[in-house]
Parts: sequence; structure tokens; C-alpha cells
Amino acid sequence: MTNIKPKIAISIGDLNGIGIEIALKCHEKISKICHPVYCINSKMLKLASDELKMEIPKDFEIFKTKGEFEIKAGTVSKKAGRYSYDSFMDAINLANTKEVDAVCTLPINKESWSKADIKYKGHTEVLRDYFGKNAIMMLGCKKMFVGLFTEHIPLKKVAKKINEQDLTTFLIDFYKNVKNDNIAVLGLNPHASDNGVLGDEEVEIFKAIKKANKALDKNIFKGPLVPDTAFSPVSRKNYKYFVAMYHDQGLAPLKALYFDQSINVSLNLPIIRTSVDHGTAFNIAYKNEKINTKSYVNAIKEAIILISNKK
Amino acid sequence: MTNIKPKIAISIGDLNGIGIEIALKCHEKISKICHPVYCINSKMLKLASDELKMEIPKDFEIFKTKGEFEIKAGTVSKKAGRYSYDSFMDAINLANTKEVDAVCTLPINKESWSKADIKYKGHTEVLRDYFGKNAIMMLGCKKMFVGLFTEHIPLKKVAKKINEQDLTTFLIDFYKNVKNDNIAVLGLNPHASDNGVLGDEEVEIFKAIKKANKALDKNIFKGPLVPDTAFSPVSRKNYKYFVAMYHDQGLAPLKALYFDQSINVSLNLPIIRTSVDHGTAFNIAYKNEKINTKSYVNAIKEAIILISNKK
Repeated sequence: MTNIKPKIAISIGDLNGIGIEIALKCHEKISKICHPVYCINSKMLKLASDELKMEIPKDFEIFKTKGEFEIKAGTVSKKAGRYSYDSFMDAINLANTKEVDAVCTLPINKESWSKADIKYKGHTEVLRDYFGKNAIMMLGCKKMFVGLFTEHIPLKKVAKKINEQDLTTFLIDFYKNVKNDNIAVLGLNPHASDNGVLGDEEVEIFKAIKKANKALDKNIFKGPLVPDTAFSPVSRKNYKYFVAMYHDQGLAPLKALYFDQSINVSLNLPIIRTSVDHGTAFNIAYKNEKINTKSYVNAIKEAIILISNKK
Repeated sequence: MTNIKPKIAISIGDLNGIGIEIALKCHEKISKICHPVYCINSKMLKLASDELKMEIPKDFEIFKTKGEFEIKAGTVSKKAGRYSYDSFMDAINLANTKEVDAVCTLPINKESWSKADIKYKGHTEVLRDYFGKNAIMMLGCKKMFVGLFTEHIPLKKVAKKINEQDLTTFLIDFYKNVKNDNIAVLGLNPHASDNGVLGDEEVEIFKAIKKANKALDKNIFKGPLVPDTAFSPVSRKNYKYFVAMYHDQGLAPLKALYFDQSINVSLNLPIIRTSVDHGTAFNIAYKNEKINTKSYVNAIKEAIILISNKK
């Protein structure tokens, strides 16, 4: 009996950054749990591995993303920006046509994308546009995951976004993706408003929790939790999945606790996509410095979990 | 040569809660580093120690806070509320007349205060009213402290409070109290606004930092820092003191990391006051259960540091 390993397309990220080094370094390790397909052509792969003085593993399967340019370690570049975008598009297409089971992305450089006239600021925006669906951004690691109800908006605009209907939809979608039966939902205000003394958005949050639980016919969502104690050690014993009302509410505690190991996951899309939670690290690219590969390995592992959840 | 230990008045907190047990348990330990004066009369002390089946240490110096009532472990009570308030007022008076060098408060119960018709919601409000000064709330432990620029207000009201003038005053006051030369100031928005893409309050924060540094003639304040990475392990190697723009921005990461050991400090007042960062724990009061005394011991230690800073 052969156990078929899930196939994962790896978008190679900005080739002037640390992505390719991470991919080469971790190939043997991740090949034990999945079948990686790297979106990079042999010419660019050779240039990068020569520059790194690293051998290309024999079973390093590639999907030939077109393009060629000179690698300049740690440099913002139009050509590197374009190539990283094309590598990502190839990976998405492979997933969309079901040639792979998931996509895992290595870091791109936003300035390089901008130089290459790519209108998107990052991977998630591309995915939203490509699929016309509202991706849910979730960050975390094995110990805890945080889904973000609002993301990249000014703090002053957060409160207005909290309403029963949108939050109910979000919660149900979130549950369908993570399939966990015990999810903490945070309040918005200090002390979760102390019964309305410090704001009133908790009323909407409470109603959304109730409605989502009713729709799912199970007591999945708990809360609204007092935000500043939601991530205390005792509370983390009770919950692995959290829904935060805004970006820093969830990510500041997550990064205080698990900065190195965290990953980024796009939920609620027709394809599975996970990503490292760090940048191109231009300052240490191609220097054979000690590179932390935890986030990448965790991103691969989470992709595999999501693949099996989907089945 | 005798080294005179600093004198600290201990307000005894709600006698139906865990405060008195903490005080009795830690007396020997804290007496090595300070000279505690407990605001409780001998009758109430005897009732409590009998109930706890604990001996009263011989050198347990008291200031006789008036009043008498039956202790009912774990119960909200008008009389216990009144007594805890009177104990706190005695401690403040002792500090204000310089009979002690600082006040350390054990937890009170807000409902009991309310039942006793005390108009304040907590210690800090009493202090603001008593001294007519705007106390700065700082929480933390030896490893990190967070000062809160705004506290108990709805999240939607935070952004409007961020202005150069008030923040400059806050920063200068904060520095004068903590006397640390390297203080991190957080931005308000995700990614500290990404150069104005996600909000604009960082402009005010930046100006306040510049102005405060100029007024102090030293590069004390750094920032605005990206909020979600401000408390990452690398960042915490650089900073021990942080200024957060709002309650949960600072307290959620703090409590994720150091829930048990954290304390609460009131800065910017004519007297020094520190406090435990937990409540009355009615559920375990007078049950001889394992009680965590770290927060209390740390509150005493911090009071001693602040006393020596002031000299």
C-alpha cells in the first residue's frame, strides 16, 4: 500500500531574498511529508544555487516559471519582482487546476512588485482578485491560531465594521475552514466593555456568536472574551483558535509569544494557501547566515493539515 | 551602620477575599526588604487569622483602621467594601503625611464598594480625586512595563485622543517617573500605518516623540513602533519600557507573556502606589488553597525601586 503524499506548489518568492535558500535547505525535510513542486525554471535555479554554493537536490521537482535575470542579493529589483509574481501565478494556476493540492508561498518584496508595475500589495490581494472571494487571514502556529475579522484598516475604522451580520458570516466561514469545535471570539473594548460601560459593540459580537452557533447547531463559539486576558496562559489552555476583531488585537499577543514559528494562512478560498510569516530578509540573503526555517516548515505542515481537513 | 528599610503601608483589600492570606503568607519574605505597616485593626486581624488558621507574626505592625464585621469568605458585602475602602484611605493618608514611603494595595471588590455607596470604581480613581492629579497607569513586571496613554475608554474613542500636545506631556511625565533612557512608543494603526496608508495618527505620535526628546535633551523615546512586532522577543531585548496608545494594545501582550507576575503601578502622583494585578479571588478565599503571591511580592519590590528612584 502506498500512501500518496500531498502535492504542494511552492512559489519561490523574491530571488534576491532568502526564499530560495530556505527552499533548498528544507527540501529533504519537507519531502518526507509532501511532494513539493517548485515554481522556478532550471536556469534561475542554477544561478541561485551557484550563488549560494549549495547543491540542487536530485529530486527537486520544478515547474518552469518563465524568465531570466541576474540575481543581485538583497536588492530591490523590477525583474526579481516580476519573476516572484509570475512564480506565484504559476503556483495558483497549478492549484486551481488541481495539479497540486495546495500552495505555499515564500516571501516577496513589496517594493520590487511596485517597481514591476504589479498593482497588488501582496499575496492575499492577488488571491482575492483572482478568485473574487473574500479570503480570511489567519496567523499562528501549532499552539494557537488567530483569525482576523478586520485586517489592514486604520484603527479608528474598526468599531464601525463590527456588526452582527458580517461577523456571523465570518464566524461560520471560519469554522468551516478550521473545523475546530471550541473557538474563542474576542470582544472589541477594554474589559469587553464591562457590561456596556466602555463601548457597546460587544452586543453585536454576542448576537453574532449566538447566531453562528445556532446555524451550526453546536456551541462552537465562546465569548466575547475580555481581550487583554484572552491570551493569558490559563485561557490558552482552553482555546487553540481565536477570532480577533482587529489586526493588532490578535497579532501583538501572537508575535509576543510565537514570533519565529508563526505562519500566515488564507482561508475561505477555492484553493489552500499557506505562507511564511516573514519577509525577504535582504540583509542576510546569500550570505550563508543562520536562517530560521521554522515558519516555512510550519507553513508546509499546516497546508497538509488543511488538505486533509478538506477531504 | 544601619540601613533603614523603606516603610510601606499595605491596604488590606477586601477581607472576604484572598488579600489578608497573601499578606500573612508573605510577611516574613517582604519584611526582609521593607518595613510593612498593615492597615487593619487587631480585632479584624484576629478574626481573619483564626478563619485562616494562620498565626499572626509577632512583628506584624498594624495601623488600626476602624471598623468591625463578620468575615464571610467569598461574599460581596457592604461592610467588607467599606472596610477595604477605609483601609485604603488610611494607607493614602499615611503616605501623604510621609509616615510611610509608599502604598501597596491588596485587591478590593468593585461590587462591594458599590454596595457600600462608594462612588469610585477602583483605587486609581480614588487617587486621581484625592490628589487632583492625572495618575499614569503602568502595568508590568521586572521584564517589561507598559504605560497606558489611554485606559478605560471605548476603542472607537482612542484615535481622537492621540494628539501631539497631550502625548508629549504624557511622555515627559512618564520618563520622570520611570527614569529609563530607552523607551519604546507604539504606533496606533496596523503596521504603524505603513507610511500613512492605514491611518495618520502616527504623525502626531512622531511629533510628540521628537518634542519630548527635545525637552529632555536626550534621545529617550523611540518609535512609533509597529504595534504587532513591538513585543516580539527581539524587540523586548531592546526595550524594557513601552508606551501603549490604548489598554489592550499593551495589556494583551503583557498578560500573554507575564500574567502571574504582573503588577499595577500608579505613576505621576505625589505618593508612590503599587498594586497586585489580580482580584479578590473569592472562589479560593479562606480555603487554604495554593495562592499565587508573585504579583504581591513584585508589587512590594517595585514600590521599593520607585522609592529609591525618587530619592
